Amino acid sequence: MLCLQHFTGTLDNWDPAVMDALASQRELILFDNAGVGRSSGTVPNTIAGMAAHVFAFLDALGIATCDVLGFSLGGMVAQQMVLDRSSVFRRMILVGTAPRGGEEIMHLEKPRLARFLQDRTLHGYEVLSRLFFTLTPTGQAAGAAFVQRLSQRTDDLDRPSGQEVAAAQMAAFREWEQFTGERFGELKRIMQPTLVVNGVSDEMIPVRNSYMLSENMPKAVLLTYPDAGHGSLFQYHEAFSHQAATFLESESAPY
Amino acid sequence: MLCLQHFTGTLDNWDPAVMDALASQRELILFDNAGVGRSSGTVPNTIAGMAAHVFAFLDALGIATCDVLGFSLGGMVAQQMVLDRSSVFRRMILVGTAPRGGEEIMHLEKPRLARFLQDRTLHGYEVLSRLFFTLTPTGQAAGAAFVQRLSQRTDDLDRPSGQEVAAAQMAAFREWEQFTGERFGELKRIMQPTLVVNGVSDEMIPVRNSYMLSENMPKAVLLTYPDAGHGSLFQYHEAFSHQAATFLESESAPY
Repeated sequence: MLCLQHFTGTLDNWDPAVMDALASQRELILFDNAGVGRSSGTVPNTIAGMAAHVFAFLDALGIATCDVLGFSLGGMVAQQMVLDRSSVFRRMILVGTAPRGGEEIMHLEKPRLARFLQDRTLHGYEVLSRLFFTLTPTGQAAGAAFVQRLSQRTDDLDRPSGQEVAAAQMAAFREWEQFTGERFGELKRIMQPTLVVNGVSDEMIPVRNSYMLSENMPKAVLLTYPDAGHGSLFQYHEAFSHQAATFLESESAPY
Repeated sequence: MLCLQHFTGTLDNWDPAVMDALASQRELILFDNAGVGRSSGTVPNTIAGMAAHVFAFLDALGIATCDVLGFSLGGMVAQQMVLDRSSVFRRMILVGTAPRGGEEIMHLEKPRLARFLQDRTLHGYEVLSRLFFTLTPTGQAAGAAFVQRLSQRTDDLDRPSGQEVAAAQMAAFREWEQFTGERFGELKRIMQPTLVVNGVSDEMIPVRNSYMLSENMPKAVLLTYPDAGHGSLFQYHEAFSHQAATFLESESAPY
């Protein structure tokens, strides 16, 4: 299963609680797209440009078909890829993401998000904990546990993403909000069994974007989690890993 | 697990594919409310009135706490019950239903529904197949299989519901659409782990009502199925039975 990462995320941003659980049953491929982490090149400013790099990567590895876990930005790249080359994916898991023509995608200028991004008392992953998890005691406890898990590994880390990465990826989000022709029409062509996952309180990419996906993709099952934000898969890592594995193993659709 | 039935439904409307699967692991209680099937009395014209009858039934059996599967009308009764007596349910499964203050609940006058209800060439369960399942080949094939499963048992059947049952239950739907105070505010008091299930193409109680439930109930997980209508639990009986059993067995929330 190919794993496509979120805005500014590198290999180091995958939660080991989720990846180790999934990797116990299948091979995972974690991928830094062009210009991210230790991948050379320039970050494209469109989702289509990012998809082209992933195709080059898969082709170089000789992988014709795989499963995909696309989180946030990565879920958009996964959608673009399956529309460009429908045979590329067997099954898809799309977490905290949005279709082309989606709404309120990563508007970091919103006060709810900006206040943490501009708070100079928050360091490192503390910002991520505020952005990815609800502000309830349960949400913030899950956020702290997530940060602790991410911090376990200290060797061989990726180069953190800077402003250039962020600017290009942000431009890609703005372009992805645009659509021509029938809104969500292209989703109806995606015949892959798909598991769509979101937290109901996602402030970065609101849950209604997941409703748009599941209402328009012919074989999409939607799963939402309570008291959870953008990082719902990390907050409920046990439940998510179990649901994802069941979905991937199932011969039927839905699972 | 107490099972609370849909509009005009009797014990005979529970799909054996779902009930047998669930009953293999736990005791199920199927219940005809007052005035329905072979239960004596008069059908209340409010959800609260129906909830009172279920309490009398549970109290008579000496059941203080149980799980509940509430489908459509039955899901509204379950919500009213847990608000009236919070200890009554351990875990809740709410399928194809709506919160108080929900929208477009069972408006059978809508052309999409009325055309089947008024079609005199359709007999018996043929109407149910059109109302509960999508009109795609897959949906109608699932509907035909459902009708065949319901028709297997021919002995010891309940009295079918007539116009009096329908009129009182319809009045209860209209009352349930009304709300005072903070909309969905009472949902925030329901602390039971809850699994909310719906088909994305439910014309009888649109899926956005399930979004209202899962966005406002503190411990609700939402599961939606593609190419499915009001009878999503019967269409995907294997997937639903598996998900329901996993949810009921889980010690964590969400599961």
